[in-house]
Amino acid sequence: MGEFELIAKYFSAVGAKRSDVITGVGDDGAVIQVRDGHDLVVTTDTMVSGTHFFANDDPRALGHKLVTVNISDLAAMGAEPAWLSLALTLPEVNEHWLSQFSAGINETAEYYNCQLVGGDTTRGPLSLTMTAKGLVPRGKALSRSGAKVGDYIYVTGTLGDAALGLKLQQGLHQVSKKHQTHILQRFQYPSARVALGQALRNIANSAMDLSDGLYGDIQHILHRSAVGASIDVQKLPLSQALKDSCDNNTAYGLALSGGEDYELLFTVSENKRGSLDVLLSPYGVAITCIGRITGAIGKLELKKSEQTFSYQPQGFKHFA
Amino acid sequence: MGEFELIAKYFSAVGAKRSDVITGVGDDGAVIQVRDGHDLVVTTDTMVSGTHFFANDDPRALGHKLVTVNISDLAAMGAEPAWLSLALTLPEVNEHWLSQFSAGINETAEYYNCQLVGGDTTRGPLSLTMTAKGLVPRGKALSRSGAKVGDYIYVTGTLGDAALGLKLQQGLHQVSKKHQTHILQRFQYPSARVALGQALRNIANSAMDLSDGLYGDIQHILHRSAVGASIDVQKLPLSQALKDSCDNNTAYGLALSGGEDYELLFTVSENKRGSLDVLLSPYGVAITCIGRITGAIGKLELKKSEQTFSYQPQGFKHFA
Repeated sequence: MGEFELIAKYFSAVGAKRSDVITGVGDDGAVIQVRDGHDLVVTTDTMVSGTHFFANDDPRALGHKLVTVNISDLAAMGAEPAWLSLALTLPEVNEHWLSQFSAGINETAEYYNCQLVGGDTTRGPLSLTMTAKGLVPRGKALSRSGAKVGDYIYVTGTLGDAALGLKLQQGLHQVSKKHQTHILQRFQYPSARVALGQALRNIANSAMDLSDGLYGDIQHILHRSAVGASIDVQKLPLSQALKDSCDNNTAYGLALSGGEDYELLFTVSENKRGSLDVLLSPYGVAITCIGRITGAIGKLELKKSEQTFSYQPQGFKHFA
Repeated sequence: MGEFELIAKYFSAVGAKRSDVITGVGDDGAVIQVRDGHDLVVTTDTMVSGTHFFANDDPRALGHKLVTVNISDLAAMGAEPAWLSLALTLPEVNEHWLSQFSAGINETAEYYNCQLVGGDTTRGPLSLTMTAKGLVPRGKALSRSGAKVGDYIYVTGTLGDAALGLKLQQGLHQVSKKHQTHILQRFQYPSARVALGQALRNIANSAMDLSDGLYGDIQHILHRSAVGASIDVQKLPLSQALKDSCDNNTAYGLALSGGEDYELLFTVSENKRGSLDVLLSPYGVAITCIGRITGAIGKLELKKSEQTFSYQPQGFKHFA
């Protein structure tokens, strides 16, 4: 089977069928009708075998995660996800793998109302790159650069579960039976906070998604916004599963430096803070205030019971 | 040096500075103001070390080619190139390589008035994926699916030079000294037919770019348009350099199945054919009529002096 038949079979009709896609998979490029009065938001994420996943990982979960990590970036911008491109590099044709991987992409893309509109399939070491595109009302995109001194810092959901899930999958950490499914699910089938991200458009001063761990990720907001931050580690939202599975310090470490949570980190000024719970309650996602933005440019201060919390960051960095 | 500093150093300001880019490199995603009344065109191409190039190839030429192959797809759609995303997978940090590669992207992106707006850098086997985005007036995008029976088939420029350049670079074919620079240039620094592609918007019934060789590529038009084609191999436009370097059959073989020419293939109905030379002459690119579209669905007929030309295709196919 040639490259083109392969693509046609597994990737010609993936995800939602959107009426704004004039030309999808199969031409030199995709043609898309962008909604007037909106800005386009574009993001790209690569997952490399041996770096971000293992060659024998469940291909359906990989397809799910590839879509989710990209959609999560769009969510952090306050964008509505819409169109996906896939660059797939494969060492060989494995039909079972392809069918499962494309099924994972298909069901997740459909869930987020996204259509796969094109891409490229090549031969080489297993690697998955997705470019996701979405829409935001003109001028309403969230960014990492808008945090203001005095802003309250919030995160969605709970932190550290995905990192514990990775340890569990690798056999490096025990988790009691009743929590195993939840913890593995958080690692293998993460969710993107799309509705909440859109709800933050007129509320948050800055936002980003947590992919490499809070401790490292928040530095981007500090850098781009030229501010500092003070975080109370005791306020970090931890799941019951995480608390039951780890001692305190391990739990704080996973919450601070464990990657792949795909929760949102955002900052809100004092005058918008009062109505926050009411405005965000319809989205069914817990939000937790974990600290404040300070004027100490580039400085991240961790506190516990009003004491400085001493912490050696273990954030994931390629090329570190 | 961490991943983020690396990206910031070499990829934070690459290509043209466009006023429609609200947020570029450095946030969760790029934010782009799309021109009203236009459709968005998106294309993705991957180049894998060992499959599409060699690890010791000139990184500046690689940067140039990565941009050009993507822009060429936009040209084939009649689109105006605008924004690029780069997914770069590297086995290690090599500053010389990075500086040359980003210089190649920068100068080529600038030439085509494109801005690099984001991407991802990861560790793994060397691989380059670019997603290019462009604009076309609403409803005016060219496609592979519009060819009509009776259309005249045209190609731009000359065919087979890039394939000869690859053989020359590999030491597999001799080329006389006076032609070497031209032939290597055609392989290492191809051009995308952007202005001509835009000029074809109201002229061509179908169009595509030639990346894998005419013989294989035209099948996409036959398949998508449900037509056939008859091509006179004696009409294939060959450069003097190619004719001087090869016997007739080798030259036809390179022109039919040699990849990476990045010329445009397009079809035009009889009633638009008369004014074609006049309309396209300002673009300084030769066009050559090489045959007709027929009603024999899916059939590609090659002729030479009115006789059937017997040819064993050698088109490049991943996973073939």
